[in-house]
Amino acid sequence: MPEYKAPLRDIRFVRDELFGYQEHYASLPGMDEATPDMVDAILEEGAKFCEQVIAPLNQVGDREGCTWSEEGVTTPNGFKEAYQQFVEGGWPSLAHEPEFGGQGLPESLNLVMSELIGEANWSWGMYPGLSHGAMNTLHAHGTPEQQQTYLTKLVSGEWTGTMCLTEPHCGTDLGMLRTKAEPQADGTYKVTGTKIFISAGEHDMADNIVHIVLARLPDAPQGTKGISLFIVPKCLPNDDGSAGERNAVSCGSLEHKMGIHGNSTCVMNFDGATGYLIGPPNKGLNCMFTFMNTARIGTGLQGLAHAEIAYQGALRYARERLQMRSLTGPKNPDGPADPIIVHPDVRRMLLTMKAFAEGNRALLFYAGKHADIVQHSADEEERKASDALLGFLTPIVKAFMTETGFEAANLGVQCYGGHGFISEWGMEQNVRDSRISLLYEGTTGIQALDLLGRKVLMTQGESLKGFTKVVHKFCQKHVDDEALKDYIPKLSALNKEWGELTVKVGMKAMKNREEVGSAAVDYLMYSGYVVLAYLWADMVRVAKDKLAEGSTEEGFYTSKVQTADFYFQKILPRTQTHKACIEAGAESVMAMSEAHFG
Amino acid sequence: MPEYKAPLRDIRFVRDELFGYQEHYASLPGMDEATPDMVDAILEEGAKFCEQVIAPLNQVGDREGCTWSEEGVTTPNGFKEAYQQFVEGGWPSLAHEPEFGGQGLPESLNLVMSELIGEANWSWGMYPGLSHGAMNTLHAHGTPEQQQTYLTKLVSGEWTGTMCLTEPHCGTDLGMLRTKAEPQADGTYKVTGTKIFISAGEHDMADNIVHIVLARLPDAPQGTKGISLFIVPKCLPNDDGSAGERNAVSCGSLEHKMGIHGNSTCVMNFDGATGYLIGPPNKGLNCMFTFMNTARIGTGLQGLAHAEIAYQGALRYARERLQMRSLTGPKNPDGPADPIIVHPDVRRMLLTMKAFAEGNRALLFYAGKHADIVQHSADEEERKASDALLGFLTPIVKAFMTETGFEAANLGVQCYGGHGFISEWGMEQNVRDSRISLLYEGTTGIQALDLLGRKVLMTQGESLKGFTKVVHKFCQKHVDDEALKDYIPKLSALNKEWGELTVKVGMKAMKNREEVGSAAVDYLMYSGYVVLAYLWADMVRVAKDKLAEGSTEEGFYTSKVQTADFYFQKILPRTQTHKACIEAGAESVMAMSEAHFG
Repeated sequence: MPEYKAPLRDIRFVRDELFGYQEHYASLPGMDEATPDMVDAILEEGAKFCEQVIAPLNQVGDREGCTWSEEGVTTPNGFKEAYQQFVEGGWPSLAHEPEFGGQGLPESLNLVMSELIGEANWSWGMYPGLSHGAMNTLHAHGTPEQQQTYLTKLVSGEWTGTMCLTEPHCGTDLGMLRTKAEPQADGTYKVTGTKIFISAGEHDMADNIVHIVLARLPDAPQGTKGISLFIVPKCLPNDDGSAGERNAVSCGSLEHKMGIHGNSTCVMNFDGATGYLIGPPNKGLNCMFTFMNTARIGTGLQGLAHAEIAYQGALRYARERLQMRSLTGPKNPDGPADPIIVHPDVRRMLLTMKAFAEGNRALLFYAGKHADIVQHSADEEERKASDALLGFLTPIVKAFMTETGFEAANLGVQCYGGHGFISEWGMEQNVRDSRISLLYEGTTGIQALDLLGRKVLMTQGESLKGFTKVVHKFCQKHVDDEALKDYIPKLSALNKEWGELTVKVGMKAMKNREEVGSAAVDYLMYSGYVVLAYLWADMVRVAKDKLAEGSTEEGFYTSKVQTADFYFQKILPRTQTHKACIEAGAESVMAMSEAHFG
Repeated sequence: MPEYKAPLRDIRFVRDELFGYQEHYASLPGMDEATPDMVDAILEEGAKFCEQVIAPLNQVGDREGCTWSEEGVTTPNGFKEAYQQFVEGGWPSLAHEPEFGGQGLPESLNLVMSELIGEANWSWGMYPGLSHGAMNTLHAHGTPEQQQTYLTKLVSGEWTGTMCLTEPHCGTDLGMLRTKAEPQADGTYKVTGTKIFISAGEHDMADNIVHIVLARLPDAPQGTKGISLFIVPKCLPNDDGSAGERNAVSCGSLEHKMGIHGNSTCVMNFDGATGYLIGPPNKGLNCMFTFMNTARIGTGLQGLAHAEIAYQGALRYARERLQMRSLTGPKNPDGPADPIIVHPDVRRMLLTMKAFAEGNRALLFYAGKHADIVQHSADEEERKASDALLGFLTPIVKAFMTETGFEAANLGVQCYGGHGFISEWGMEQNVRDSRISLLYEGTTGIQALDLLGRKVLMTQGESLKGFTKVVHKFCQKHVDDEALKDYIPKLSALNKEWGELTVKVGMKAMKNREEVGSAAVDYLMYSGYVVLAYLWADMVRVAKDKLAEGSTEEGFYTSKVQTADFYFQKILPRTQTHKACIEAGAESVMAMSEAHFG
């Protein structure tokens, strides 16, 4: 039975020491509530809730799953009570506007809490997590009345929300969607259609569920330009704001799936359900894209969560499990064998997990800081710059963090040997739960196209430059820094190579658009490794400063430097394979005629 | 619901066209029954059995799993009946000696059948599969009486067998095992102890189960030199050879695990069970190592199986699923969207799976040919050479094939997008079932140590040279071959680099033994990619010959060449990352003190 410990020390390291969140919060107008004391108290309280309330439900959720009946969906034992505590603790309202009952704290604070929740119990976390999409939609596009009716209930956590996008025949290609919304005389709409893969689509944890549904008006143009957004509540609101009569929307069945068993993945049937248009007609997709970045960062976070859990579990086991002797002589001479952490290949796996967990945490906090700036900064230039940078980083956060999170989850299993395959230890659940993160909210392939096609090439490389400039400046500043001499030359060379590779792909793409799709995933992974190299070098800077100052936490800072060394020597070389694959181009990918595949 | 088709065309390609099995069988003494007609009839019949009888039980097995009760273990619906058909068809006896009721056919024929069984239903295939360990033990080390009593029943399939090695506190490190065997006045032993992870340890498919148990005699030396082998039957044999009275061995519980739900993974309790010593006392581990190669090849095969299933499933879906338009204009203009096989990233994933499935099949047949030679050749020199080559290849077959098989299984899920996560399609089960293959029969890390430490460095590189010479000769022969000009220079350079890397590691290892463990997994994967490059180049040779001859199967042979191109351009560059990691050495792996890991 795995035990979850919130990684508070490391969170404080990236938050306070690496990125100076104290000054960051102080610089944002209206964020004065986010004092260091307040921020840290929230972290402590959040950690307690996650460790004590929801982490113990993680295996329960996997084992029991959700149960469907005509009356609705029952969540695993304890999920509902935990949610009640969550609402009573005021957690849903953390980063929302005071006018809707929110606490008006920065979005990045919510992101930290999301990390802890995700690590403790990803399936449970999806219920409140899914509400965010609905809240963002209502916040950005709802009428004051809609906000009053729905947003306040979502902010308080009394109701939860969903995003109903996918249909059986269309996931990525939303232009094909068929769900219809027919206008009624009273200004409402009758929504009819079937949606699938609706996470938290039906459950017993809250009084009402606010579905945000993509559907077509009768006269809508074909394709993505004919999609509108509708609010379709599970229960129609009464005049006093409470949940009233059931609407004609129901969960037809639950999917049987590889993991995240504790979350209900619903087929939702809309049978002329009453809906309310939100935002302008036929602009539904545009409305959604305005907050796609935050949603995708929230999914990227899942990769971090699974890497952290894998590392915690594997480290515990590697210290306890006695098996074989070290090749350089017994390290535990009084025991029957040495703990497996002495073996180089076990260390290789542990360090890989550690490098991804801590590196990706830094990436998350980096993105979170820019998300705060986009939302709150008074300086328009700064807002714009952060928005562009965030747009560039988002597909990397989503795809690179989840790909490496899945790798880490599998290494977690591998460290346990045969025991890793056994459910009791929790490591195999971690793999199964993590697998979805490479698929939903846009697959790795889709993120890669977004990065290389939409973000980089469509801006003629401007968005890439926005980031490589940051790295370049860092390298320039530390070019003669003795403490960073093992990192700066490599980082600097890669930063340059990144630009050159981009130009090469761009040139080829002008002749053949398949070059973009053929290079995209390799390009995204290459980019991710360089981004993490920058962050690891920056973490070394902080750690070595602390060591030079004579910090009492020598072990903590030394291990930061050593993890960075491992990252630079044993992980960063992956860029060279991705580079070769990018340069190899589209020919070998596109040559085979469809008939000859088999 | 996935549908399995035995890949007969590709099997015939590697068997007949690439490796000339007809001549191979004809050259082996006593293998005259293996005529081309006979061999192909067995393939056809085997394919029918696998497609029609056991493939339909694959999802059933996953869903139902096995059920434990005091009386024993019940296998999933249909498993028992399928096994009955398997026995009636004479399948268990294929490659066994006629004196024990076998058909005396070559081991490689059995391997082909194992591929088909493994692809159709790995969990089911483990029941007859596990018997092989027991049969090999009895064949090599049993007395004539033991062979008469047990081997004939295993060969006929009336009884099945297991290998009882692992205990709760020891898996890899068998020297720590505690199960005891106390000699009795009648020459038998009382075996007492607990074994875990015993695949097919208890089930309802056969009348009796023959456990081969590792245990210690009372006076045994400590460690691996004090382990003996015992036969412990579930039911003691009657004088007429039938299964009689229950022995004091029982299944205490079943493990809950990530995959292979259809196979019973048992905790086995031996409570003074009657056992019979097999082989010399205290030489149990040595006895087992004599046939470890074939057992590990049998597990390596699992990687091939999952890659094939992933490819079949993903290809079917990629042709049917309509989503988005090709970047170079509609390919299915009359439909609402193009089939996703038009998209470069989907093709990248399909070609990766194809390259691994077909490349690993070639590797399996290559190893199988040498296994036949070891077993049957009249020429001692040839036997010795094949044995050395097989010893070298075995850890690569086991670990590289399962690692790439797991990768392919995950790509199978990825091609389905969100649907890949849903059980119905079978792709997620394929991932779960494949995950164990990296763990049992020696983890990837253990295989890697076996390859680099035991096989390569302990022979001063001789075993590596045995293989690089083969590649070198091939390159020499085809150095001016226009048809192979895109492959030979790359292959030749890697073959040389492989040797150089080995020398480098060997030099470092003389100073620091941790260098071996730190480089091992990268070295193994590097080796696997080079081995497959050789096999792909050889497949191109055959395919281009056929095309030059004007074969009517232009599509088949062209796709072989195109898959090789993809392999060389998009997969082989992975060697460069592994090379860099090998060269980076042990320092960053070993530097961190255990206390500082977290």
